[in-house]
Amino acid sequence: MEVHEVPMPEIRKPGDVIVRVIKACVCGSDLWWFRGIGQRQHGSLTGHEALGVVERIGDDVHTLQEGDFVIVPFTHCCGECAACKAGFESNCFNAEPGGNAGYQAEYMRVYSADTSLVKVPADPHELSDETIASLLTVADVMCTGYHAATCARVQPGGTAVVFGDGGVGLCGVLSAKLQGAERIIAMSRYEDRQQVARAFGATDIVPERGDEAVSRVMELTDGIGADSVLECVGTEQSTLSALAVARPGGFIGRVGVPHTTNIDVNNLFWRNVTLSGGPASVTPYANGKNGLVAKILNGDINPGMIFTADFDLDHVQDAYEAMDERRAIKSMISIGAL
Amino acid sequence: MEVHEVPMPEIRKPGDVIVRVIKACVCGSDLWWFRGIGQRQHGSLTGHEALGVVERIGDDVHTLQEGDFVIVPFTHCCGECAACKAGFESNCFNAEPGGNAGYQAEYMRVYSADTSLVKVPADPHELSDETIASLLTVADVMCTGYHAATCARVQPGGTAVVFGDGGVGLCGVLSAKLQGAERIIAMSRYEDRQQVARAFGATDIVPERGDEAVSRVMELTDGIGADSVLECVGTEQSTLSALAVARPGGFIGRVGVPHTTNIDVNNLFWRNVTLSGGPASVTPYANGKNGLVAKILNGDINPGMIFTADFDLDHVQDAYEAMDERRAIKSMISIGAL
Repeated sequence: MEVHEVPMPEIRKPGDVIVRVIKACVCGSDLWWFRGIGQRQHGSLTGHEALGVVERIGDDVHTLQEGDFVIVPFTHCCGECAACKAGFESNCFNAEPGGNAGYQAEYMRVYSADTSLVKVPADPHELSDETIASLLTVADVMCTGYHAATCARVQPGGTAVVFGDGGVGLCGVLSAKLQGAERIIAMSRYEDRQQVARAFGATDIVPERGDEAVSRVMELTDGIGADSVLECVGTEQSTLSALAVARPGGFIGRVGVPHTTNIDVNNLFWRNVTLSGGPASVTPYANGKNGLVAKILNGDINPGMIFTADFDLDHVQDAYEAMDERRAIKSMISIGAL
Repeated sequence: MEVHEVPMPEIRKPGDVIVRVIKACVCGSDLWWFRGIGQRQHGSLTGHEALGVVERIGDDVHTLQEGDFVIVPFTHCCGECAACKAGFESNCFNAEPGGNAGYQAEYMRVYSADTSLVKVPADPHELSDETIASLLTVADVMCTGYHAATCARVQPGGTAVVFGDGGVGLCGVLSAKLQGAERIIAMSRYEDRQQVARAFGATDIVPERGDEAVSRVMELTDGIGADSVLECVGTEQSTLSALAVARPGGFIGRVGVPHTTNIDVNNLFWRNVTLSGGPASVTPYANGKNGLVAKILNGDINPGMIFTADFDLDHVQDAYEAMDERRAIKSMISIGAL
């Protein structure tokens, strides 16, 4: 990671706003290219989660004003296409190519700002650091974990298994709890993550992986398997294990960026297991009186617990390394003052 | 196909009944082995759909009596395991290996009869031939088509595309209509099947296949794709086409026995498309005051239209050939008198 001065972003379309970034963070999905497993062009701007203050608005922005405190989602939402109308803004037909990057910066441009940004209905100066941290998770990981639980159709009283103990997996545990799961089995072998998983509602912790993990979950579920499985990793091992522990008629909600093609979908067919999931949408989960932002402001949930380290922009390399080396569950990057 | 005298089936467990078969039929899934593409042991009993009269009951049968008019589903339901309780009797943990065969016969044994059989609440002597034919579809194809629509989460006002114009596909069209789809696109190139599809509620017919079919459906849906896709074939071409026409966030309900492993599930992920389906369950869809049997007895639906040929047991080879050569949409086999 390198820090450079780049041109100040500008309003390019009438629906744009410029956001002054207060907090950004590092996503587990960034570790794929940080580790060299995935590709990323040298010199490209990074980061896709932020919290900030509206600095400037375009001529066709109607619901936002300068000074508004906003969450900047990793998705953009035109609000008008069939995908956005169906609640899948992550598949917006009008998304700009390569548009969702450059959040780890002092300023950033957001297009379709009226529909894309999540306005926080609170005075940020009155919010605690914990609440600010929790609001930052709504930009991606909390909504992604919530999407996993939604796609896995977690039901009140049901059993959920969560693969992945990074930020998304832990938010998946919290989401399964929010959606009423009675039993939540978290797959984790790290003490710090196990603790957060328990705080978020996990009733059982399984440290094993692969076939041993499958055996352990099947034991815990009396040989039946789980109603709902949240796959929040994306590796072949994790995905195959996730598929194996769904009960007949069960649901897999997968949100881990897939790094496997080796999935036996015929096996899913014979067991009537549903494979669902993909990139989450933020605004449908974040907004509204029962939305995630309201739950955070009410103190019902505290997903910000996943931030266990805080860095400034000059130490962004350290922020990535801390996650890469599992010294941090998720790294915050504090950029501007409120 | 050969017709042989075999030993009269007997009560083996206290929950068994012996059914005297009135009507059986040939399933599209049987054509896989009839054509030599799938394997089947020589001398094995065939057929998995029947309508009949209870001839004899075991000591632990409580809801059925001799003389009851029953649909014999292709599935068995113990009613007690986690799969049956979740509504997935096709995945019953207590199913007997190889239990679902031998329905094309004068008599057959049914285990777990109380929970497995669908009792028809009507005097069969007062039912028309059309109604009898419609009730026979409940043994498999109508429930399988309904399962496809359910798994594809057909919504009132939505758009559904149905791949397959055999008995299951046509029942899928009817089910999409029942579940409120406003637009139903049936993929069919055969005049007789197109007519039934239209009678069942299809609003558009697409005779193309493969890439041309995909282009045509995308045109018809303004480049967006369909909310719900019912895959009722199972071949690679049909499955890949079905996956390609789902809109972002759409649902595939697949019930065609899969004959492909070449499915790019990562593509599904990026489009947030859900892949659901498998062998249908009969009793959850058949029973109840809003169930399929009630709808048939009320005259609301007439899925029996898919039977376009009728044979006796001595001509069972002809029944298979008629379907194999597409002279019949679905062949009925009339076996016993009421």
